[in-house]
Amino acid sequence: MKRYDQVAQTLTQRIEQGQYRVGDRLPSVRTLCAELGVSVSTVQEAYRRLEEAGLAEARPRSGYYVLPRPTPSLLPKVSRPAQRPLDVSQWDQVLELVARSPDEDRLLMLGRGIPDLAAASLRPLQRQLGTLHRHVAAHGLNYDSLQGSLALRRQVVRLAAKSGCLLHPDDVLITTGCQEALSLALRTLTEPGDVVAVDSPSFYGTMQILKAQKLKALEIPTDPRTGISLEALELALEQWPIKAIQITPTCNNPLGYTMPEARKHALVALAQRFDVAIVEDDIYGDLSFEAPRPRTLKSFDDDGRVLLCSAFSKTLVPGLRVGWMAPGRYRDQALHMKYVSTGASATLPQLAVAEFVQHGHYERHLREMLRQYRRHRDIMIDWVTRYFPAGTGVSFPQGGFLLWLELPGDIDCVRLKEQLASEGLHITPGSLFSASGKFRHCLRLNYAAAMTPTVEAGIKRVGEAVAALLEQEQPA
Amino acid sequence: MKRYDQVAQTLTQRIEQGQYRVGDRLPSVRTLCAELGVSVSTVQEAYRRLEEAGLAEARPRSGYYVLPRPTPSLLPKVSRPAQRPLDVSQWDQVLELVARSPDEDRLLMLGRGIPDLAAASLRPLQRQLGTLHRHVAAHGLNYDSLQGSLALRRQVVRLAAKSGCLLHPDDVLITTGCQEALSLALRTLTEPGDVVAVDSPSFYGTMQILKAQKLKALEIPTDPRTGISLEALELALEQWPIKAIQITPTCNNPLGYTMPEARKHALVALAQRFDVAIVEDDIYGDLSFEAPRPRTLKSFDDDGRVLLCSAFSKTLVPGLRVGWMAPGRYRDQALHMKYVSTGASATLPQLAVAEFVQHGHYERHLREMLRQYRRHRDIMIDWVTRYFPAGTGVSFPQGGFLLWLELPGDIDCVRLKEQLASEGLHITPGSLFSASGKFRHCLRLNYAAAMTPTVEAGIKRVGEAVAALLEQEQPA
Ligand SMILES: Cc1ncc(COP(=O)(O)O)c(C=O)c1O
Ligand SMILES: Cc1ncc(COP(=O)(O)O)c(C=O)c1O
Repeated sequence: MKRYDQVAQTLTQRIEQGQYRVGDRLPSVRTLCAELGVSVSTVQEAYRRLEEAGLAEARPRSGYYVLPRPTPSLLPKVSRPAQRPLDVSQWDQVLELVARSPDEDRLLMLGRGIPDLAAASLRPLQRQLGTLHRHVAAHGLNYDSLQGSLALRRQVVRLAAKSGCLLHPDDVLITTGCQEALSLALRTLTEPGDVVAVDSPSFYGTMQILKAQKLKALEIPTDPRTGISLEALELALEQWPIKAIQITPTCNNPLGYTMPEARKHALVALAQRFDVAIVEDDIYGDLSFEAPRPRTLKSFDDDGRVLLCSAFSKTLVPGLRVGWMAPGRYRDQALHMKYVSTGASATLPQLAVAEFVQHGHYERHLREMLRQYRRHRDIMIDWVTRYFPAGTGVSFPQGGFLLWLELPGDIDCVRLKEQLASEGLHITPGSLFSASGKFRHCLRLNYAAAMTPTVEAGIKRVGEAVAALLEQEQPA
Repeated sequence: MKRYDQVAQTLTQRIEQGQYRVGDRLPSVRTLCAELGVSVSTVQEAYRRLEEAGLAEARPRSGYYVLPRPTPSLLPKVSRPAQRPLDVSQWDQVLELVARSPDEDRLLMLGRGIPDLAAASLRPLQRQLGTLHRHVAAHGLNYDSLQGSLALRRQVVRLAAKSGCLLHPDDVLITTGCQEALSLALRTLTEPGDVVAVDSPSFYGTMQILKAQKLKALEIPTDPRTGISLEALELALEQWPIKAIQITPTCNNPLGYTMPEARKHALVALAQRFDVAIVEDDIYGDLSFEAPRPRTLKSFDDDGRVLLCSAFSKTLVPGLRVGWMAPGRYRDQALHMKYVSTGASATLPQLAVAEFVQHGHYERHLREMLRQYRRHRDIMIDWVTRYFPAGTGVSFPQGGFLLWLELPGDIDCVRLKEQLASEGLHITPGSLFSASGKFRHCLRLNYAAAMTPTVEAGIKRVGEAVAALLEQEQPA
């Protein structure tokens, strides 16, 4: 065992034994050097390991702090999906969710995938929306170029560099949200009847693309800490004629994990070996609590087989529908698909986002949001721990604003949702995230916006409802 | 012959003999009653016939005026496309057109499908874009409902009533431009390998959808005054397994005709007889020079087989990408396709358009534009007549802002386009409007924006270039 690994282990044990508690400042590098008789670089490396393991975080000019950590027994279980390609169902459930009109909705939405839209650091975006149409004159009302505004593509290139991607503006295609990017990618790669491997649980929007394109989903077992099982994926690649792998490896929706870098690298190598394409959804990637943000699969891609899809829907606002993709070697086909899908994307929203990013507002907003979302994550986990029955599995998100719960017993969250709706509460059942409606005993919660007493009361009420259902389950 | 037909004939002869000239006010109803000894209602009916024939127009509180009329010999010929289903090509040509960035373009664009974006009557829209984001607070930044904003759907219903369609807001689905509506419609109706019948020439955007979906285009002979040949269509329906008819029957792009109402009715009946669906593109319909505007095919549809597609891209501005569809009995499938294609459409553009329409700005803007476009049409036809070689066929648009030219001899407009680009002029060759690159001797011109001396000089230069090519063609 390397020296720094020993130091890391010592610190881990102290944390686990409660010597250092959540939120505590860990000893300074100098103190530890003296105590353990090791070099500065060894302690520094040991702290880096702790960070990677999600045990501690560095705060600039302050030191290392202990992070809250899920008790391993409370994590959701590794998923065990069907071991064969399936047709996707669940559209009724998804439709119910996406048909809602936000201005008319009177329910307390506890589970939608929406960021905090009331953030003060978004104000410059609203200002730009208000003034742009004057500055840009007629061309802001005209068709944009099919690839999208060059000003925005330049900013996308700059941001993508932070995830290890070296792109040129010509490699980037602006889309109408990440949903369009995913749709173009899958339509480019597949024909009806083809098999696509996905992580499980998996974002319902992509699952519904598979349904619409008459593709089959092969759901791969997924670990709530490290993501898709490479071992299971490899077996599947040997067994089935898989055309593409679709996956959200960073700040996964709904599980919140980030695949460790080595596993990302191995995944790309696996795709190369079996010559399949990867559709990488990175929509939450910039919301990673790690700094610098984790690398994308795309950053390991040296032969253009990764189609990277993203959007500003979760980092900024979803209603502008500004997304993008870097389709690698599939650029020409993706461009054709883009044209027939919606033509050029809307002009003014692109220009507003480009300005926002260019003037540094994006990075400032991210900093605010990351601080907020991390704090909210810990509060939400705390509430769930308090208000939900023992045995409830809880994810430990590495970024983003979504929490995944696995309820004990045989709770049916689709029925629970209907029951709670009559009380003014809306939850998102886990079954949306499965091709065949599995994960009915799971649900997704959102902790993006203000954690008000109303939200707390809502969470408490959901927990009580779950407990009541559990009790009914017990044989009398 | 009915009495009013006789009166209409008399008036037609007088116009043709030059007794009444273009722009002249025709005799008042009372004067004609006295002169011809017929009833008021007979004269009124006769004038209605003249209007329908495109010979005269009514101006409110003023009377009837003689309209300019194409010399029949100058009209483009009825198209004679291939008589079998074809794969669509021409993507390179289309890409070249749609990849252009309007803000960087230094060419004088003489042929793109763009309305006048400098119109004063558009200003309220810009104002709304500037202020809306404040009024609507966070929900303007949020996902809209999948069907689209109810406020906008209500306005669409109101406008659609003017084309004879009785819709309910639930029948309407807001899309990201008409392109998305067409794409959803065709993806809903067909599977790869299916045959779709289209008018010919036909809008290249739809043709490229056929290509992307691996559909085959069966181009039907089309008359530049009355539209798709019902006789040829009927034969085709007997001979081929046609899954859908895709057609732009009102203010056709590129030919400018409006199918007479009786033929529209007959087309819907034909589709019923052969049990095929119709994808009706009405994007230019509200720009018809007739008042009230012509009926849609959809208005004759009593069993939900017409999927009506439209957008505010030509009547207002294209860059907001606000379109809509009324998918009839295919609503559920279209909604699913919409979700997987782009999710909900952008929120603020929908709200801006809804307000614009609701406050009466839309109808005011249309009135202005119709006056302008009709005037510009006559000017453009005049320029073409003056500056192009004899034998040039010219369409006579019944609405919209696009003119179609059929050049004499064997002119290749794709090469002509390249030659003119080096002189700073951009034209749109006819070959984009054919599955297999026919109509290379045709080109499309745009007369939407100000008819400045620069535009006139551009048109003159195109005419000269055509004449020079014609001369080269002559055997020495
Ligand atoms: C993982 C993931 N991908 C894609 C999307 C769709 O993003 P957009 O709203 O930009 O289309 C979502 C939104 O819910 C998501 O969670
Ligand atoms: C006939 C026709 N249909 C559809 C479209 C596409 O419209 P939109 O820009 O709303 O997608 C156009 C635009 O060129 C068109 O001319």
